[in-house]
Amino acid sequence: MPDVIEKLVATFLRFPGIGPRQARRFVYHLLTQNSGAVENLAKDLLALKKQIGQCQSCYRFFAATEASAQSVCDLCQDPARDSGFLMIVEKDADLEAVRKSSEYQGRFFVLGGLLPILEAEPEKKIRLRELQTRLKASPGQLKEIILALAANVEGDNTADYLQKFLAPAGLKISVLGRGLSTGTELEYSDAATLKNALKNRS
Amino acid sequence: MPDVIEKLVATFLRFPGIGPRQARRFVYHLLTQNSGAVENLAKDLLALKKQIGQCQSCYRFFAATEASAQSVCDLCQDPARDSGFLMIVEKDADLEAVRKSSEYQGRFFVLGGLLPILEAEPEKKIRLRELQTRLKASPGQLKEIILALAANVEGDNTADYLQKFLAPAGLKISVLGRGLSTGTELEYSDAATLKNALKNRS
Amino acid sequence: MPDVIEKLVATFLRFPGIGPRQARRFVYHLLTQNSGAVENLAKDLLALKKQIGQCQSCYRFFAATEASAQSVCDLCQDPARDSGFLMIVEKDADLEAVRKSSEYQGRFFVLGGLLPILEAEPEKKIRLRELQTRLKASPGQLKEIILALAANVEGDNTADYLQKFLAPAGLKISVLGRGLSTGTELEYSDAATLKNALKNRS
Amino acid sequence: MPDVIEKLVATFLRFPGIGPRQARRFVYHLLTQNSGAVENLAKDLLALKKQIGQCQSCYRFFAATEASAQSVCDLCQDPARDSGFLMIVEKDADLEAVRKSSEYQGRFFVLGGLLPILEAEPEKKIRLRELQTRLKASPGQLKEIILALAANVEGDNTADYLQKFLAPAGLKISVLGRGLSTGTELEYSDAATLKNALKNRS
Repeated sequence: MPDVIEKLVATFLRFPGIGPRQARRFVYHLLTQNSGAVENLAKDLLALKKQIGQCQSCYRFFAATEASAQSVCDLCQDPARDSGFLMIVEKDADLEAVRKSSEYQGRFFVLGGLLPILEAEPEKKIRLRELQTRLKASPGQLKEIILALAANVEGDNTADYLQKFLAPAGLKISVLGRGLSTGTELEYSDAATLKNALKNRS
Repeated sequence: MPDVIEKLVATFLRFPGIGPRQARRFVYHLLTQNSGAVENLAKDLLALKKQIGQCQSCYRFFAATEASAQSVCDLCQDPARDSGFLMIVEKDADLEAVRKSSEYQGRFFVLGGLLPILEAEPEKKIRLRELQTRLKASPGQLKEIILALAANVEGDNTADYLQKFLAPAGLKISVLGRGLSTGTELEYSDAATLKNALKNRS
Repeated sequence: MPDVIEKLVATFLRFPGIGPRQARRFVYHLLTQNSGAVENLAKDLLALKKQIGQCQSCYRFFAATEASAQSVCDLCQDPARDSGFLMIVEKDADLEAVRKSSEYQGRFFVLGGLLPILEAEPEKKIRLRELQTRLKASPGQLKEIILALAANVEGDNTADYLQKFLAPAGLKISVLGRGLSTGTELEYSDAATLKNALKNRS
Repeated sequence: MPDVIEKLVATFLRFPGIGPRQARRFVYHLLTQNSGAVENLAKDLLALKKQIGQCQSCYRFFAATEASAQSVCDLCQDPARDSGFLMIVEKDADLEAVRKSSEYQGRFFVLGGLLPILEAEPEKKIRLRELQTRLKASPGQLKEIILALAANVEGDNTADYLQKFLAPAGLKISVLGRGLSTGTELEYSDAATLKNALKNRS
């Protein structure tokens, strides 16, 4: 097989959830497209890294307007958002899910990952220094840090780590409530979920 | 195929989650067992309906001791359980899950099902009369009814129906708290789950 | 949980493809059935081992008529079947699949299993002695033995073993043809399948 | 969300087997890559349509050397391949699977699709005119046309159609043999597969 096909297969193989067979199907799919469509995809890819910046305050990706070459995103600049709350999420997709729920009106911080159990170098896995810088940037304003991490082993481990890491700041730190999530049946729920569902009954 | 095989296939087909192919594999499995094993299964099945009674107070299945031919189960008779709380669950498996979580020390009531949306005859789907009888049986004791139903459309519909059905009793009625259940990732959570997780943060 | 429930859960756990959760659901399913239905199941189970015999010639299960207490099944006795062909299958379900295809009119022999690679005691896994007895029972009649085993590693290993095991008999031995089976796409076919599909083109 | 992200999500949505959630994950994946990696992907995409041509004889995709700007692929030009055989496949991936099996040394023709039942305009779905042109291009050489199509309803329908379409040419036309494909168990095989496996036994 020609080099360029193998190179593209290798690239698509690194896409999340893609195996060798599907990576190759992607390349055949592109081959059957007309040249214009593939050129447009190439153009959009080049535009992606130019038009989308990473906010230097919350580290989410956002559309940077070229004129200002701004380094801070619209959410971080939005005066309507309550700077008294900082929600720490793992990744952009989590942040977007919270935004869609339309309930939270505070600020965000994207951690960039979760900590595996016994991680030796946490600062290489998640944005700890950036988080400290972020906290120092808004002295006195912050009332509560909300740890909004996945309800699994790595999420809990990260929350534990952050509780200790953030303790010196003396701020209120909360974690998202556990309970029955939509679609859950009691029969298949673990004890922790049921205990919290009972505690949080209303 | 011989009649008895087809009859057993038909019976196994009514087992939850079993299709024709697996029903037939069950029969072949039994054929390869020795006679003693199959006779023991038959004996256990006959014992099941004799040894297991249905509690006439909470409607869960329980091991009835032959001497007393009791009609009320050990949980309903246990003086250590708090008669101030009555948790309404859909089925025995849900009740067992709650018991395993070791948090709840009140009484139970097994509803026997959930109500589909627009169900015309709710009293044929769930134990409404039995529930009323149960409530009348403990006047003055009850402080709270906890609706512990699945976090899905039918569970919510049943909870709504029961709220209205139980309103005349003037008791406090609560539902299990929603939130992130163990294993849930924010990215894949719906707005209702995230709102409740935020509200129930701690 | 009562003993009889746990015993039944343990029994259902040995059913093919059944895990602990589903085994327990089976028991709850039976508890919600009326007594008559469960008694009928117990009766059918007892009838199964009485009414279904194992043919002492081909080792398939069959409905034994009580009068004769016959030991040889209808297929083995059927004069319309061609005793010149003996098809060796792994199990009853395979034999039934071949019968349904209505193509084969010879005799059968049920091996009772397949041989794992490097199996030390083949005679404990498959009916080798019974097969030898079967071959001696019809001297001179047999023209061809057809190995109709699964097209996988264990099936191939068993076929290889039987080829050597049966070689002294000096009979023609064939194996089922490989090729594209219904539903197969070329893209996902392995080299062996494609080679045979090409060889067997028509 | 910024336009360029939504445009890329829409493009990835058209990739085979990709839903909205995974399309978006692809874009986030690209955002976390460094600029060089994304630029390389864009470059490879542009190279793809330039370096890969579509053979004007067999219609497979192939690496065109720039100097010659050749229009016929290496397989079609390879003198070691037997021009007496033409295998008709649905798509490039099928052709590659056959090549990997190392059995077939004839020529290929890529049909570009399969015909649904009752397709009104077959010439718009598969390369019928191109096939006729291909046949006229090698008068006298061809001994056999091998229809190597999927063993499913559309594959069979296409084979039936091509048999009639190619009949006037008076050439031998064969289809790939059916039988047990690697991994198949008899119990789960349909009658057509078993009949052919029996017919093609060896």
